[in-house]
Amino acid sequence: MEKKGLLLVLSGPSGAGKGTVCRALLKNEPYLRLSVSATTRTPRPGEVDSVDYFFLDSEVFNKMIKDGDLLEYAKVYNNYYGTPLSFVEKSLKEGRDIILEIDIQGALQVKKKYPEAVLIFIAPPSRFDLKKRLFTRGTDAREVIEKRLRCASGEIKVADRYDYIVVNDQVARAVEQIRSIITAEKSRPHNFKSLLNSFN
Amino acid sequence: MEKKGLLLVLSGPSGAGKGTVCRALLKNEPYLRLSVSATTRTPRPGEVDSVDYFFLDSEVFNKMIKDGDLLEYAKVYNNYYGTPLSFVEKSLKEGRDIILEIDIQGALQVKKKYPEAVLIFIAPPSRFDLKKRLFTRGTDAREVIEKRLRCASGEIKVADRYDYIVVNDQVARAVEQIRSIITAEKSRPHNFKSLLNSFN
Repeated sequence: MEKKGLLLVLSGPSGAGKGTVCRALLKNEPYLRLSVSATTRTPRPGEVDSVDYFFLDSEVFNKMIKDGDLLEYAKVYNNYYGTPLSFVEKSLKEGRDIILEIDIQGALQVKKKYPEAVLIFIAPPSRFDLKKRLFTRGTDAREVIEKRLRCASGEIKVADRYDYIVVNDQVARAVEQIRSIITAEKSRPHNFKSLLNSFN
Repeated sequence: MEKKGLLLVLSGPSGAGKGTVCRALLKNEPYLRLSVSATTRTPRPGEVDSVDYFFLDSEVFNKMIKDGDLLEYAKVYNNYYGTPLSFVEKSLKEGRDIILEIDIQGALQVKKKYPEAVLIFIAPPSRFDLKKRLFTRGTDAREVIEKRLRCASGEIKVADRYDYIVVNDQVARAVEQIRSIITAEKSRPHNFKSLLNSFN
């Protein structure tokens, strides 16, 4: 297999709309495969094991950490979340492109372990817009939102460690921009080895 | 000016069709500005000074080399060709995107002097296709074509030092791919400094 798959990491602060962008992208690009995360948290109503998450108990999750079976992991509000390495590696070897929708600390872990990963930071168009989105979600208490907003400001500081920034002003436009990034990344010289060798 | 212009370098072996792709791209993207090269060769019928080339005598050209006024230059068949630095620098500072259509040795010189330059290698789809294109041009003698073909094989070896490779199988498709590369390069974090700072 000449062309190894692309490992695309979509990340950004809470309220930037990375979930919406990711779903819209997957609808447009059926060849993209979404990586399923593992978690120790309890399934929410309607969530399906192996589809939404691999729901694991803490013991199994800790063994995976110890054995290096996770590409990245993080503890969020007493629960663990992580990306099983085996699925990602298998897909990339098959030439399949994989997308990870994870938080910022996870994204930077992936880049460290797998420098070819393409990190895309989904940014809100403005501070005002971010605040509005967090408030109109309506699921969280005011203090939680204020905390998220402070957290987001901190997270945006590391955006310059990403490969690309996509401002989520309109979902369709953001998706187009990500498609262009995918096309560009597939134009990297390492994907053309056999063509280039054929001219010798 | 937050967003500095992009310096795009289109290059590739003779017969790959970089001129055709460049013209088609400029038609599609009117904001792109083509850099005009300087040369010591005699104008061909119909060529206009300051439009097709800056036609200079050897003395002036040599002074520009000595004064460091060229971004790159090369001697081809007893004539000098080069890119005047001043025009490129001025345009980039104004936030204008510049495109250079130059040969391979020139492209690598540009990358050395200006690492932010985006180097795109226009590759022929196959050796057979390259040969066909060189022969059907009909302007050159057989020996000249054979020499160009050997030269092209050597030039293709350095393609892995480029940022991107675009296979010119169809001009319209190649242009689309280059437009995606431009979009991706405009998504680099350094273009979003003031947005990112506004979240503090």
